Amino acid sequence: MTESSPAAEGVAFSDPSYRAAVVDLLGVIAYGEIAAFERLAEDAKLAPDLADKVALATMASAELTNVNKLRDRLEELGADPFEAMAPFSKALDSFHEHTAPSNWLEGLVKAYVGDGLARDFYAEIAAFIDVDTRELILDSLDNATHSQFVVDRVRSAIAEDPRVGGPLALWGRRLMGEALTQAQRVAADHDALSALLAGGVDRPGMDLAALGRMFNRLTERHALRMEELGLAH
Amino acid sequence: MTESSPAAEGVAFSDPSYRAAVVDLLGVIAYGEIAAFERLAEDAKLAPDLADKVALATMASAELTNVNKLRDRLEELGADPFEAMAPFSKALDSFHEHTAPSNWLEGLVKAYVGDGLARDFYAEIAAFIDVDTRELILDSLDNATHSQFVVDRVRSAIAEDPRVGGPLALWGRRLMGEALTQAQRVAADHDALSALLAGGVDRPGMDLAALGRMFNRLTERHALRMEELGLAH
Repeated sequence: MTESSPAAEGVAFSDPSYRAAVVDLLGVIAYGEIAAFERLAEDAKLAPDLADKVALATMASAELTNVNKLRDRLEELGADPFEAMAPFSKALDSFHEHTAPSNWLEGLVKAYVGDGLARDFYAEIAAFIDVDTRELILDSLDNATHSQFVVDRVRSAIAEDPRVGGPLALWGRRLMGEALTQAQRVAADHDALSALLAGGVDRPGMDLAALGRMFNRLTERHALRMEELGLAH
Repeated sequence: MTESSPAAEGVAFSDPSYRAAVVDLLGVIAYGEIAAFERLAEDAKLAPDLADKVALATMASAELTNVNKLRDRLEELGADPFEAMAPFSKALDSFHEHTAPSNWLEGLVKAYVGDGLARDFYAEIAAFIDVDTRELILDSLDNATHSQFVVDRVRSAIAEDPRVGGPLALWGRRLMGEALTQAQRVAADHDALSALLAGGVDRPGMDLAALGRMFNRLTERHALRMEELGLAH
């Protein structure tokens, strides 16, 4: 998925810094899914009717289901799952506080764009870890089946009143900005995660140029998602 | 399950009043589970830690999963699922408004007692309908796997501080009262459902005495649940 595809199959969990990085990674993803559950369940209240409410609530539940696999894996690694998640609550709660939707359509765009961004971002990082953990992570981030209804709803709202498109496009840009801000904060606060990206003696990593290209890829995929929603500019 | 066990296998869905009653029954149960999802997701915010929050959120998600089977069945019967649910929103929302927990333990007791009451009540009514629908209903009300943690948490809270028991016992009584109030309102407002309980030409029903015995059974099972929680008086 990344250019160098430096899958670190050979790395043993006996390396404490590698293990710490994987625990951090599983912890941040799990907390992210719990926070997403809470936020989507909350945003479902904005739904114009019961059918839409249930559709968003179902996306919320799917996030929560994914947490179980990550918990099991954390326990296998000898970590307390909730202790592993705790250090990430501040950054992720802060993301959601700064991006509380003010209406139903903003909630839908956030559900779609936020979920996609998280999936892309963690998939990039997962390229640096062992195959088993990588597959678990990719699997736990797969919510694609639930999101078609978001595309349908947003596109038909724009078809009905093209004026809603402009503010929603700005909203999408703001979501991306807030996500990058918090991702940077998480990386800065967690040495093990940063070290994972930087590589090690027998593990390939990213230099600054590669990091830049990764952010380019994330931005491009974000733009594609906005286009799918009918929010290209 | 009821004393006369008058399973109405022979009744055809070609009887419009029977079909209307089944649509009502599936509709009220489905709406009840959606409302329970919303309420449990909200009450999860009261959790003292992340593990407890996830446990209650998981109960919320289980409610929502059950809705799918009921939706499918409503569609098979040619009904719009959300139209079938709509007439029950007022009574069920009202129940939750009147029983908003003011702390985490009240939320737990409500999750356990409310879920159990709903299951018992619908199981009683399901005794009057065809086997297929009955099994679907019983299946969709089975959340037992998630509720052991409630018993553990409530019992250990009382063990730690016996003074919390008294108010929680009162709370349980209030939940029962509110549930009966709303159940009565639902029955009074929906002739098809009342007619189902009253029976018909080729369908057995309940007379007033049988209705009284049913309420006795519900009350007894409620008392057993309170006892399981350590809240007997």
